[in-house]
Formats: sequence, structure tokens, C-alpha cells
Amino acid sequence: VNADDLARLRRCRLFRDVDQRLLGELLSRFACRIRSYPAGRLIHTRGEPYRNLLVLLEGSLSAEMHDLAGRTLHVETIAAPQAVASAVLFAPENLLPVSIRAARDVRLLSLPAEAVLALCERDSGFLLALLRDMGRRATFLAEKLRLTQFSTLRQKLASYLLERSRRAGTDRFDLTATRQELADVFGAARPSVSRVFGELAREGLLRLEGRRVEILDQPALSRLAADDASGGAPGDR
Amino acid sequence: VNADDLARLRRCRLFRDVDQRLLGELLSRFACRIRSYPAGRLIHTRGEPYRNLLVLLEGSLSAEMHDLAGRTLHVETIAAPQAVASAVLFAPENLLPVSIRAARDVRLLSLPAEAVLALCERDSGFLLALLRDMGRRATFLAEKLRLTQFSTLRQKLASYLLERSRRAGTDRFDLTATRQELADVFGAARPSVSRVFGELAREGLLRLEGRRVEILDQPALSRLAADDASGGAPGDR
Repeated sequence: VNADDLARLRRCRLFRDVDQRLLGELLSRFACRIRSYPAGRLIHTRGEPYRNLLVLLEGSLSAEMHDLAGRTLHVETIAAPQAVASAVLFAPENLLPVSIRAARDVRLLSLPAEAVLALCERDSGFLLALLRDMGRRATFLAEKLRLTQFSTLRQKLASYLLERSRRAGTDRFDLTATRQELADVFGAARPSVSRVFGELAREGLLRLEGRRVEILDQPALSRLAADDASGGAPGDR
Repeated sequence: VNADDLARLRRCRLFRDVDQRLLGELLSRFACRIRSYPAGRLIHTRGEPYRNLLVLLEGSLSAEMHDLAGRTLHVETIAAPQAVASAVLFAPENLLPVSIRAARDVRLLSLPAEAVLALCERDSGFLLALLRDMGRRATFLAEKLRLTQFSTLRQKLASYLLERSRRAGTDRFDLTATRQELADVFGAARPSVSRVFGELAREGLLRLEGRRVEILDQPALSRLAADDASGGAPGDR
């Protein structure tokens, strides 16, 4: 791990506050590897054991699934610098829930689970950052699962915005998620999300300025979301 | 926290190996509370901040969501002894993703997040158990999300069993999940899961003995799962 890569690693939220000497010591004590992959390369396949935490230092990854009809389903875009699938590393069945493909040229650090544990034990800031990162992943999955009960992107976006408004306790709030993160949680393409935002704005349901959302017609947005909440999971029985 | 409750706490996987004196010390240092609730009582509502880890000492809980049509969706059954929503406790947005209702009379220990962190720092066995528990939750959510692409319970069960078989590397394997856990991951009622198991056995696709599953006709099971994998999420675009 050279100085440039160490600097990249320290831009990652998880490693930002770790003592530099401790980090260097652990990186040399454990078998940490850095690898580069060209854009398009399939790096890991869903179902592989996940025993080394991957940290994306450069580029971006696409997390994918394949359905039985052979179609590729894009689940999520992972942009550098970021840890990959941190929530799964210590699971009793620590198998990758998604395949991982290089969306652009990437550099990946591979950090054995034991090194991650050692970091947790020796640096409480890292421990908290790891727990937060795992929590962020679980929240993403839970919200994505909640939104599967809606069948259209319009309904998903309406329900998502109502939920944000409820949490903020006001009709005006800032979206903390990027457009790509929104697209990922809806299981939609980014341009489609922008298009639906535009539709809802033209219909007078909301106003949009950068990250700031103002809900103008809450009842109409609620009707839209409730229009067809009879879809599949969770809880189709 | 009396001796009986401490004994119950130590039956929970998360606390099993924690040094008894350390546990007692932390329980008295932090504001830990034990509360009882009668069956049927709504204990926490989805969207509430989750700042104290709840540990179910006795009874069972139902994790629920409500859709916009006002229907209650049962997400998961949580049986004692077990920690509740451990994956969310340290999330940047640590809001409960589900409502929690007492399915039977329950006793719940409430443990401040700071006490959980202190335990992680002072007991590496607890740290690993917590990371495993959080990982188990994330895996459950990811698998549930994957199965939403199937529209019927027959297809979900077929796909689930094919996945277990693939992981086990053989057509004969033991199910580690209980019937209730299977029902939860499928978003179905437990008797429905048993009924579909019975159907698939009568149709000659599998043999079932207790927890042992033997897949007898893998191609037929694959056809069944692939029959309609054109449903909603993940990745409906």
C-alpha cells in the first residue's frame, strides 16, 4: 500500500479518523492487497464467500443480480471512496448478496476480516464508523424493501418524499441522498427519477431547487402514493 | 435488573459469552430499564428514533408495517431471547424501520447505545457477536429483497431452495431457518409455507424429512422458479 493509496483510503469515511501509524501498522501486519480492474470487468460473483472487506479507492462499482431469465438487475452504484458490503462481512453466512462489476476503472483494497476486527478493538472511532456504515446499509435495504410495495416509480417517489417530510417534521426539507442513491433505492434509472421529479413539479405537487424539496400539495401526493399500494412484498399473503 | 432477568439476558446469543461481572457493572452504570407489555400492545412505532437497543427477554414480538391503504403487513416474528433491530441502532438515521407489537406477553430490556459501545470496547467476544447479529439482519433483508422479484410463494420457495442447494453444493441439505423464519423471508403465513412444501413434495420435486431437504427434480424446480421472474423489484425499470 503506497502513500497515494493510503491517502485515498483516508478519504473514505470509515478510515478518516484512524490514527495514521496504527493504520500503517495493520496494513503491513495483515495480508492487504490492492488490485486494479478495468471498466466492465466482473470482479466477484453473488454467492462467493466474503472474507475480506473490499474498499473502493478509485472508480465506481455496480452491484448486480441476475434473475432466472438471465437479465442483469442493477442494484446499486458504489462510488469511491467507500467500503463494499460491510454489513455482510461478519454475517454467519458471509456470502456476497450481489455480484460486483467495475463500472469504471477501479482500484480496490482488500482488507482481511481479522484486520477489520483488530481496528475495531484498537480504535473506537473506527468501531463507531463501521457500525454506522453497516447501519446505513441496513437502512437502505429496509427502505428499498418498503418501496417494493409500490408498483410505479411515481408512487415510490411520492411515498419516499412523504416519508422524508414526516421525518423532517416539515414540508420543506433537503434531500441528503444523491440522484444516483435515489435511483438505487427505487430500483430505477437515474434519468427516470429526474423525469418523474419534473412531472410532479409541473403538476404542482412539489417545488424543487437543487437538494431542497418543498411539498406543495401533500393530499395529492398522498393520493398518488395510495393509488395502488396493492403490489407485492413486503407481506404479500 | 434482577438475577432472573440477568440469566435470561445471558441466554441471548449476543450476551452469552460476556463476562458476568462486566455485564453487571455496565447494567448498573448505564440507565438500563426492563419493561413488561401485554400481548397485543403496540410498543414502538415505525419512524421513532432508536437510541436504546431493545433485548427481548421473554415472549415474542411482531415487526409490522402499515401500507397507505391502512393494512398491517407482518414483516417478521422476533422470538426471545433476541436483540431487536441491532443493525439500525448506529445508523446515521437511526429510526425504527418497523413498528413493534407484543405478539405475546413480553419483557424487554432497554440498553442505551453507549452501553452497547462500551461492551464492544471491553469485550471482543461481544463485538464479534454484535457484528454477526447485524450481518444476519442485513442478509435477511437482502434475501427478502431478492425474493420480491417472484410473484408467488411457490416461486419464492423454489428459488430459495435452489439457492440453498447451490450454496450447500449438493441436492441434500439441512434448512437452518425455522418455518417461521422462512415465512418471514417470503412475507407469507407459516401454514401457507407448509402447504407449498407439501405440494412440491406430492409433485415429486423434493423430499422433506424434518429439516432435511432433498431436491429430486432440479430442472422442474428451476422451471417453476423461472416461470414468472418478471415481477417488481429489485431493478424494475
